[in-house]
Amino acid sequence: MKTISENRCFGGVQGVHAHASEACACDMTFGLFLPPAAQDGPVPVLWYLSGLTCTHENAMVKAGAQGWAAEHGIALVFPDTSPRGPGVADDAAYDLGQGAGFYVNATQDPWAPHFRMWDYVAEELPRILTANFPIDDSRQSITGHSMGGHGALTLAMGLAGRYRSVSAFAPICNPTASDWGRKQLGAYLGPDEAAWARHDATLMMRAQGLDAPLLIDTGTSDQFGDHLRTEALAQAIAERRQAATIRLQKGYDHSYFFVSSFMEDHIAFHADALHA
Amino acid sequence: MKTISENRCFGGVQGVHAHASEACACDMTFGLFLPPAAQDGPVPVLWYLSGLTCTHENAMVKAGAQGWAAEHGIALVFPDTSPRGPGVADDAAYDLGQGAGFYVNATQDPWAPHFRMWDYVAEELPRILTANFPIDDSRQSITGHSMGGHGALTLAMGLAGRYRSVSAFAPICNPTASDWGRKQLGAYLGPDEAAWARHDATLMMRAQGLDAPLLIDTGTSDQFGDHLRTEALAQAIAERRQAATIRLQKGYDHSYFFVSSFMEDHIAFHADALHA
Repeated sequence: MKTISENRCFGGVQGVHAHASEACACDMTFGLFLPPAAQDGPVPVLWYLSGLTCTHENAMVKAGAQGWAAEHGIALVFPDTSPRGPGVADDAAYDLGQGAGFYVNATQDPWAPHFRMWDYVAEELPRILTANFPIDDSRQSITGHSMGGHGALTLAMGLAGRYRSVSAFAPICNPTASDWGRKQLGAYLGPDEAAWARHDATLMMRAQGLDAPLLIDTGTSDQFGDHLRTEALAQAIAERRQAATIRLQKGYDHSYFFVSSFMEDHIAFHADALHA
Repeated sequence: MKTISENRCFGGVQGVHAHASEACACDMTFGLFLPPAAQDGPVPVLWYLSGLTCTHENAMVKAGAQGWAAEHGIALVFPDTSPRGPGVADDAAYDLGQGAGFYVNATQDPWAPHFRMWDYVAEELPRILTANFPIDDSRQSITGHSMGGHGALTLAMGLAGRYRSVSAFAPICNPTASDWGRKQLGAYLGPDEAAWARHDATLMMRAQGLDAPLLIDTGTSDQFGDHLRTEALAQAIAERRQAATIRLQKGYDHSYFFVSSFMEDHIAFHADALHA
């Protein structure tokens, strides 16, 4: 564990830390915001999973989350979106390889040796957080944007009981039926689509549902709306009678201007569950 | 006038616009946030002047200002920090030339033909705003960060009556006595230091003071604290018995994590003046 930077922020500390990752077999960097309340003991944590092309840094500087997290006494963790480094496989496309881990454990070469983001976010990084910081791992919630929304939804349904609440900003909802998904799941998991199903929020919602409160915001002017397939997840939620709030926000697009506009709502939503 | 982008943000619109500038004799780009209230008629405007190396974009994506501006019904304008382009003089150093206009009208070559940021911010851009957007130019306030705090303070004192309130985040307070100032004022204005005085907030405070409410926040852990010379301006304010609030914020540094932490306070401060 190496601390890269620490900045005072809303009375707490925005840190950036790096460590040798076993899951990803490379060095990994993450952002961690500790609210002022963390000075008095362990605090609950909200995971924020980022989208395509992002590192740990994008949401940390653009999502406007720290002020609300400080107010509610919640830590924020911002993992990277993939393994990185010169020895890590990559692709010329922005939506495959480094910056595009899709929160799966790759089984196919050349990705298999490093692209194990599911294990990293589900197992390794939680252990590192609780071992090194005042984080109460019995109180975790998860959110994310775009590919990170896909990650939040699939991790939450795949790890029943782990997260007290789940939200997403413009999530990829049905990757097995989308250009944002078929290419990547095929590359990372191989051609057998049966292996893709546990990484598709819509299929998981149909098959099992979610054991936690759910909030989704997506803009009506999202320029990637066709890739998100919000309609498929909305239908699955309604068919299942899953308790959830799905908001189509008029005029908003896919940018962080959209994410930051609704961050207050999302953190208040998670705070209700984390402080219940 | 060309609109580069528009994103829905906190119920308003974050725009980026470009235009041929007469003052700077090149194309200039600025950000403009219009709050929801602008749909019903002209709104007051808060100028945000950025610091060294920044473009119009940094504060627009990192300062967390739009939410508070939306709440208070205030437009935000984010000018660039210098003229730019292949025909515009530059310097290898980060703190001179493009990205480092220091909000002066240069009189010295090679800077004189384009580096007229005082005229751009004081005269040209206000005209463009009121001609093209629902901005009430009788209600303007100004803030800025670092070099932009210097700009906010010196423009406000140089244009008495223009701004209803003035604030700054970690401003350069006394550039005629600082490595952040002597080099640049010498380069842009020449060796005669008499010409520098109207671009030094501490000297202006001593000579004339300010006709508007003033709020300054600077971190006690600012890594550039020696360059800022907050102590010189604080002394001048106290000697003059100038109404002002100067806050030294414990543990904060020079970053946008600092700026965003106190943005709510600054916008509320300006809103009091703009809606009085």
